[in-house]
Amino acid sequence: MPSYQEPWKKPFLSTPRFSDAKSTRTLESLCKQAPDLSKPGVITPERIVSMTSRGAGLSLLYGFQRVDQPILTALQALADEREVVGQMQALFSGKPVNFIEGFDSEQRAAIHPATRDIFEQEVVHDPAVRQLVEAEIQKLRSFFSENTFDTLLFIGIGGSELGPHAILEALKPYYLPSKKVHYLANVDPDEMSVALRGIDLTRTLVAVVSKSGTTLETATNEARARHAFEQIGLPSKAHFIAVTCPQTPMDDLTRYAAVFHLFDFIGGRFSTTSVVGGVLISFLCGSNTFIEFLSGANEMDRLALRMDIRENLPLLLALLAVWNRNFLKLPTTAIVPYSSALHRFTAHLQQCEMESNGKCVDRFGHLVPFSTGPIIWGEPGTNAQHSFFQLLHQGSDIVPVEFIGFKESQFKEDFLFKGTSSQDKLIANLFAQALALAIGHINENPNKNFAGNRPSTIILGKRLDAKTLGSLLALYEHKVAFQGFLWGINSFDQEGVQLGKLLAEQILKVIRARRSGQEDTTANPVGGRLLDILDDVTALRGL
Amino acid sequence: MPSYQEPWKKPFLSTPRFSDAKSTRTLESLCKQAPDLSKPGVITPERIVSMTSRGAGLSLLYGFQRVDQPILTALQALADEREVVGQMQALFSGKPVNFIEGFDSEQRAAIHPATRDIFEQEVVHDPAVRQLVEAEIQKLRSFFSENTFDTLLFIGIGGSELGPHAILEALKPYYLPSKKVHYLANVDPDEMSVALRGIDLTRTLVAVVSKSGTTLETATNEARARHAFEQIGLPSKAHFIAVTCPQTPMDDLTRYAAVFHLFDFIGGRFSTTSVVGGVLISFLCGSNTFIEFLSGANEMDRLALRMDIRENLPLLLALLAVWNRNFLKLPTTAIVPYSSALHRFTAHLQQCEMESNGKCVDRFGHLVPFSTGPIIWGEPGTNAQHSFFQLLHQGSDIVPVEFIGFKESQFKEDFLFKGTSSQDKLIANLFAQALALAIGHINENPNKNFAGNRPSTIILGKRLDAKTLGSLLALYEHKVAFQGFLWGINSFDQEGVQLGKLLAEQILKVIRARRSGQEDTTANPVGGRLLDILDDVTALRGL
Repeated sequence: MPSYQEPWKKPFLSTPRFSDAKSTRTLESLCKQAPDLSKPGVITPERIVSMTSRGAGLSLLYGFQRVDQPILTALQALADEREVVGQMQALFSGKPVNFIEGFDSEQRAAIHPATRDIFEQEVVHDPAVRQLVEAEIQKLRSFFSENTFDTLLFIGIGGSELGPHAILEALKPYYLPSKKVHYLANVDPDEMSVALRGIDLTRTLVAVVSKSGTTLETATNEARARHAFEQIGLPSKAHFIAVTCPQTPMDDLTRYAAVFHLFDFIGGRFSTTSVVGGVLISFLCGSNTFIEFLSGANEMDRLALRMDIRENLPLLLALLAVWNRNFLKLPTTAIVPYSSALHRFTAHLQQCEMESNGKCVDRFGHLVPFSTGPIIWGEPGTNAQHSFFQLLHQGSDIVPVEFIGFKESQFKEDFLFKGTSSQDKLIANLFAQALALAIGHINENPNKNFAGNRPSTIILGKRLDAKTLGSLLALYEHKVAFQGFLWGINSFDQEGVQLGKLLAEQILKVIRARRSGQEDTTANPVGGRLLDILDDVTALRGL
Repeated sequence: MPSYQEPWKKPFLSTPRFSDAKSTRTLESLCKQAPDLSKPGVITPERIVSMTSRGAGLSLLYGFQRVDQPILTALQALADEREVVGQMQALFSGKPVNFIEGFDSEQRAAIHPATRDIFEQEVVHDPAVRQLVEAEIQKLRSFFSENTFDTLLFIGIGGSELGPHAILEALKPYYLPSKKVHYLANVDPDEMSVALRGIDLTRTLVAVVSKSGTTLETATNEARARHAFEQIGLPSKAHFIAVTCPQTPMDDLTRYAAVFHLFDFIGGRFSTTSVVGGVLISFLCGSNTFIEFLSGANEMDRLALRMDIRENLPLLLALLAVWNRNFLKLPTTAIVPYSSALHRFTAHLQQCEMESNGKCVDRFGHLVPFSTGPIIWGEPGTNAQHSFFQLLHQGSDIVPVEFIGFKESQFKEDFLFKGTSSQDKLIANLFAQALALAIGHINENPNKNFAGNRPSTIILGKRLDAKTLGSLLALYEHKVAFQGFLWGINSFDQEGVQLGKLLAEQILKVIRARRSGQEDTTANPVGGRLLDILDDVTALRGL
């Protein structure tokens, strides 16, 4: 297991800061001459072909971005100057990449690649870590080989839910017969009221997922779920399993039929390939699908250690993001999968990117003088074409788009209509949008004019299966980390969520005091007193 | 019915443009002294109470916005100077608000308030329109009183799907026993493969919704759905109903068991209270719930005609949005409902706002010299606290938030845990977040420091029922229109979606030619040839 004793080497702390780097200067001057994609002759098939990188089952087409050879050379120089592949190697080898130098911080490793490092060529090279990971996978295999439940109630929030949920929505063609799942994330009581309707609890397994074992929403929902079992005379233990770190309050075999472990060195939002996703995939699709999923992620992990940005897909994607964010000054990025199966994938990436890189101090605790993590948002195409694409084409702001698409459908039950299949229509629309955004269209009617020169990237796979999905997930996990390495910020903590939590606890303390002695939970007396409570809270804080 | 013959009066064309208005100048100078919410003594209970507007079952708390009395006075002056309530009256009375002066444009009215103008006090005052609307509602009532189907397959995209889908997700407590629904929007063939699994077609009604009657995705999905019925020997006509405008290709009783009409004067993204939402609500909840829903929207409609911004909730919300967008220069807005039931509501509002106001020319066809519609995005709380809230609190960019919450739960099946109910926890978190964003927190550790001064609005209702939902929907519909009126842009067309459509048709033409003579729909031959196709398309366009 990685040891976090000082002194460890942090070679990348001596690299020039993002704002001081020589290549940053170069890029700043290059952005004034960035290619205008709407000019005739700029977007050509040759450009699209030559600006395509391939690996781990995915193609990354970046010819619709506002880059040219000198810009790509400078981006490579930036990656080299900031030693970001070295930083990624530090991450892989269990160095504590989660820290702020000189200040109290989590001082942890972030070795999520270890969760899929179970194949021949090792990437992490730590036998102790490998043993821990393989033992949990073995536990999964044996527990789910004997699983006779048909419904899973999955209780978890944030990093414990968004990724696995997104992945399992994308794996529907691979579900075992008659397996169903319900997700419970929110503390909103109505979410559970809906989930509990029409569930046969006798045939239901409940997975409770919390890295710390103390998440408020999860603990609340677990208590109510156990209560539902007990109300119909079912002892809950046999129906409940836990996913948590060793030694948390949830690491307790007296209360759970099984406990699966994740570890301190795996961050919540990077835990989809750990047992967090493992429990869900194994239940719904079987353990072999989980292993396939891991193999795709592992394949992308290898690419993330390449020095050449044309071979390192996650680094290339990160550099293009930084180009758009810091040089072309675009504050948001839309991620638009042309795949209904990926309808929750953007929500996961939104968490992954924004919780990791929504920071404003660097590794030395200095306020950074540049923009960091952009706002990530999006919905699937073609739906989005009938929604927010109006703004993408003609709005006052420019939004770079990351399109994701697949050459083949998942179910292969396509249908010819008016001479083309639905998959034809889907992928034709994806390309048409990237083209339209780039080239624009001149019209005398200003309301029908398209300025163009709006950048996008296309990520293209053959077919959305478990392996491709693993590769796609790891592509984005590493994109996020590379952006953080480029900016010199700590992508692995989330101190920004603490203040709200603290204030909520203060408000709840007031509510608790008022409720004491009163057990009518349906009365909902809080609403009417919100302003009184606010009064107490602001008084507490001396405002 | 409204007559669109020239000459009609367009009084609001002579008002000063947004960028020239006197009050715009005032606001520009006021924004330098906008209150700093993080300063001690600024956020007080008195401020929150006094900065609350109420109406149509909702409270709008704007004390967490960076406004004070002089700013509110100037915002009122801006509304008056731009005559936006007059413009809203023009919309209500069927004037063609959908136009660009001097250029070819749609020249249509946008009288969506008519779809709920069925109560005592009229707001639209057009007997012909009222008769049309009431006839359709009567048709709905009688068709669904005899409905024996238990599953609805709802085929539609964009304006025909996002709103109704969002609304019906929020009305789950009001579903009639054993009624189910599946939505089909995307042309992605896998979406239908998933939907068709486990459906009993003999008990399924299919609603096909397209205003134009020619939407590509919808036509494709309808064809495949009919094919599925025919494959098992069921004549499809008895199972299919249409929702479309009169005289479209879908207005055809030889192919549908019933046809419900919407009208040219109702825009797609504003059609949720028309028969588009009516079919869905009537099927799942019964027609009475639909009428309740309409009554809430109608109540908000009345408020939208008030001159005083403290009484006109949609106008107040629009002015605060414009304040954040054009004066505080914030390019996005997060809409975060603290209600799982509203999990698709933000996606609908994203369409409503971004398709309406993602424009860059004004009503005279001039490029506007200011920012228009912001990017709208969001996910429900408390989930979002475990996702992107890190960036909201500590990111390099500031994102104004619109929180939506309810004092009581829908199902009233709440649960006490650690002395408070789940609904307590939900609403305590909503207030805690608004507070935390505003006041921030000073910490010596820069990574645990919160700058604060980040604005938000809270929209609060008693309980999320059909009436409140109607009111909430109309609040946002009118917010969108008021923003457009303030900026002087046309919020009612969507020319920006045309270019992508045209290019997709060109690509499909190439694919069709290649496919001719070949009927194997599972072969997915497109993917491998994408770059060839791109070659053809760019050649077609002479690039």
